[in-house]
Amino acid sequence: MADHPPLVRRHSGDFHWDDVQVLRYKQDGAAPFRDVTRQVLFEGAGLPVQLRYFEVAPGGYTTLERHEHVHNVMVIRGRGECLVGDRAWEIATHDLVNVPPLTWHQFRAGPDEPLGFLCLVSAERDRPQLPTEEERARLAAAARRAPEDTGGG
Amino acid sequence: MADHPPLVRRHSGDFHWDDVQVLRYKQDGAAPFRDVTRQVLFEGAGLPVQLRYFEVAPGGYTTLERHEHVHNVMVIRGRGECLVGDRAWEIATHDLVNVPPLTWHQFRAGPDEPLGFLCLVSAERDRPQLPTEEERARLAAAARRAPEDTGGG
Repeated sequence: MADHPPLVRRHSGDFHWDDVQVLRYKQDGAAPFRDVTRQVLFEGAGLPVQLRYFEVAPGGYTTLERHEHVHNVMVIRGRGECLVGDRAWEIATHDLVNVPPLTWHQFRAGPDEPLGFLCLVSAERDRPQLPTEEERARLAAAARRAPEDTGGG
Repeated sequence: MADHPPLVRRHSGDFHWDDVQVLRYKQDGAAPFRDVTRQVLFEGAGLPVQLRYFEVAPGGYTTLERHEHVHNVMVIRGRGECLVGDRAWEIATHDLVNVPPLTWHQFRAGPDEPLGFLCLVSAERDRPQLPTEEERARLAAAARRAPEDTGGG
């Protein structure tokens, strides 16, 4: 993307945009994930952040990982579930998710619907850490528990 | 908002969120605008930006202004029109708008539908400049012209 993108970029109606490439989520084999794409919507142009759109196909999931940099997320398509720390939540369109530093997290689509979300991150960020087998088992158990409600206020 | 917001904040179904206040767009009398609200969705927490949600009620409009800092915008509700530089575009849900430095801009809802959009900005930013009467007349003429299509690619 040029330092300043075009003034207006149209949405196609199907979560693709003019002048926005659909990218791999990660290199294959870098870490476990399934059926995720990545599109960079805004970067550069005087802002020290990137705004990306990730889409997880039905049955797919992002890598279970943690890192120092924070994620600020808004769901804009469909519904699914997120694990943040040791709790799982059902999430749906326009819900907001905040992933604090060094907090394990994973996003999963349900079986019948994609989960698409905006993710705002710092342009300079540390590499993700992957869980040990022991941590993975503990977190998988947390994710399998019935998602809890946030309970509001 | 605390330095880290709650992990998950629910969308109400009507473009309000748990733990997010609906704020004035600007102080009354600061500059011309009509029927606009502001909600800060993400700020602080290690990110040198703010992600805000603005909603322009049917018939409303934001201030016609320009500033050094850039705006990165995604429409997430309804449709309307934006003026950027000396062109007007019709915009609808999920379209992306980039406002470069020192570029006049204004967002307008149509008569029957609100226009709601995310706006990503640097946390530190310069004060908006308002147009002279001459500039306002020139820009108003541009906005009255039939909105042009971006033409894709």
